[in-house]
Amino acid sequence: MTNKVTAFAPATCGNVCVGYDILGLCYSGAGDKVTVQKIAKPEVIIESIEGEDSLSCDPKKNTAGIVLLELIKEQKLSFGFSISIEKGISLGSGMGGSAASAVAALLAANSFLETPLSKSTLLEYSLKGEELASGHAHADNVAPCLYGGLVLLSNGEVVELPFPKFIQILLIHPHLTVNTKDARKVLKSEIKMKDYVKQSENLAGFITGLYKNDPGLIKKSFEDVLVEPLRSKLTKGFSHCQELAKAEGVLGYALSGSGPSQIALCESHEQADNINKIVTSYYESEGIKVDTFIGSINSEGAKLL
Amino acid sequence: MTNKVTAFAPATCGNVCVGYDILGLCYSGAGDKVTVQKIAKPEVIIESIEGEDSLSCDPKKNTAGIVLLELIKEQKLSFGFSISIEKGISLGSGMGGSAASAVAALLAANSFLETPLSKSTLLEYSLKGEELASGHAHADNVAPCLYGGLVLLSNGEVVELPFPKFIQILLIHPHLTVNTKDARKVLKSEIKMKDYVKQSENLAGFITGLYKNDPGLIKKSFEDVLVEPLRSKLTKGFSHCQELAKAEGVLGYALSGSGPSQIALCESHEQADNINKIVTSYYESEGIKVDTFIGSINSEGAKLL
Repeated sequence: MTNKVTAFAPATCGNVCVGYDILGLCYSGAGDKVTVQKIAKPEVIIESIEGEDSLSCDPKKNTAGIVLLELIKEQKLSFGFSISIEKGISLGSGMGGSAASAVAALLAANSFLETPLSKSTLLEYSLKGEELASGHAHADNVAPCLYGGLVLLSNGEVVELPFPKFIQILLIHPHLTVNTKDARKVLKSEIKMKDYVKQSENLAGFITGLYKNDPGLIKKSFEDVLVEPLRSKLTKGFSHCQELAKAEGVLGYALSGSGPSQIALCESHEQADNINKIVTSYYESEGIKVDTFIGSINSEGAKLL
Repeated sequence: MTNKVTAFAPATCGNVCVGYDILGLCYSGAGDKVTVQKIAKPEVIIESIEGEDSLSCDPKKNTAGIVLLELIKEQKLSFGFSISIEKGISLGSGMGGSAASAVAALLAANSFLETPLSKSTLLEYSLKGEELASGHAHADNVAPCLYGGLVLLSNGEVVELPFPKFIQILLIHPHLTVNTKDARKVLKSEIKMKDYVKQSENLAGFITGLYKNDPGLIKKSFEDVLVEPLRSKLTKGFSHCQELAKAEGVLGYALSGSGPSQIALCESHEQADNINKIVTSYYESEGIKVDTFIGSINSEGAKLL
């Protein structure tokens, strides 16, 4: 085989509004590419990082590097990897950039193993990267990135949920930064019982709406009463854009992960286009650059190129 | 038509372990019967109550009476009802007895209306009875009683969830009393965020397990980390019986509503029989009488006889 392999890992949405720490969704469009080359010594060299200036080339300070160092150590590999990273996902964008780099690196490196590892083992390695990036080894980005689709993390299992094909997903990335660690700090360690009941009603309604393919139930249920009220103020313009999208009849509008990116579930491509124009125009009027992507859910997840 | 109609309304399980205030399940077996007779004056007379000595024959102090008084008032009926109640469900048993009497009375009385009301309107009336019984107009007993099956209450909708046919439900009713209002008092107004995440993982896992017909996921998910730890001590022997049932590989074992009744989800009739014997033997050794019922889920709900 060739001694150079490239993998693509897509952007993802952690939480998916009502599923704090337990739901994750895989976007079409944006993603990171990592090219891995086998080298003789059991070490990791980051040769280049394109598309993001602030990332470190020290493999111990980069999620792609960390997960490969773990892989070498745990699998007792006699060889190592030299990697080049093309960042399609900005740091701190709420699109699962740290997860994507780690997953792409692992998937590509896995090709060089005598017995390639299973997805569930790759998931465990990729969590080591998340621990570095956010101080919290949660799988709501790495799991959808690796498996594709909409996934539920429940009691150690990654469970694929159905996602209606007609829903068009609009991903909005205003060029603002929200640090994941800061976004965790605004959360409270205690929540009101009545908010819990409301949120669980929405979570159960959302999942049931997906299984029933019921846009009405999805729309009623896609509301986060617990986390969004605390985090929305960290992303300039979010609440305003959410209101604009609701006025257009959007199925759901939420922060992507902890923001600043935003996810809109739309009933049609036309609705997605329309909301895209409205939100983009708002951010541009505020002098903030914005990237957007429209597409169905990405049910494939990370892949070798 | 005859001027006497009898309706049967089954026992129900509020909360269903992981769905505090939002899930309810309809049992086969136990239930209340209410016979309603049309009378000339727009009033309610409770002629007799069998099977429960402590219930009041004052229609304003009985859920069956209250809901019919509301019906007469709101529907501006020119006539009234005389009713006889056969309680098959003890008060404060955690089997939705107050809901069953109200639902049976409404369903029977509905036969006398020129234009019978829809189930969703009957549901609204039956909630008036719950407000009296528990100080809290929640539908997790009246909705499954009226609709049958396993229901999710989400944003004002009653949504039917799938329930695998192979699951045998064992209902255990030890002759102890837990007052619903007391059971609400032990709850806390605030809960820990980490408990919320765990509970939401279980709720989402349970619903997904039902849709996927996946006993393994149901088993892992059927655990209440929020409410049960606070309420289990109100029911003598509950935690002990839960352990005994778990040792037998039960799919799930929880309080029925706020107790003292208990629900066991079993993989087979044999397992249900076995757990039934073990738990019954424990309560009898403690000098506590116990009634038990084994059956599939009751997907029919309340009905005219």
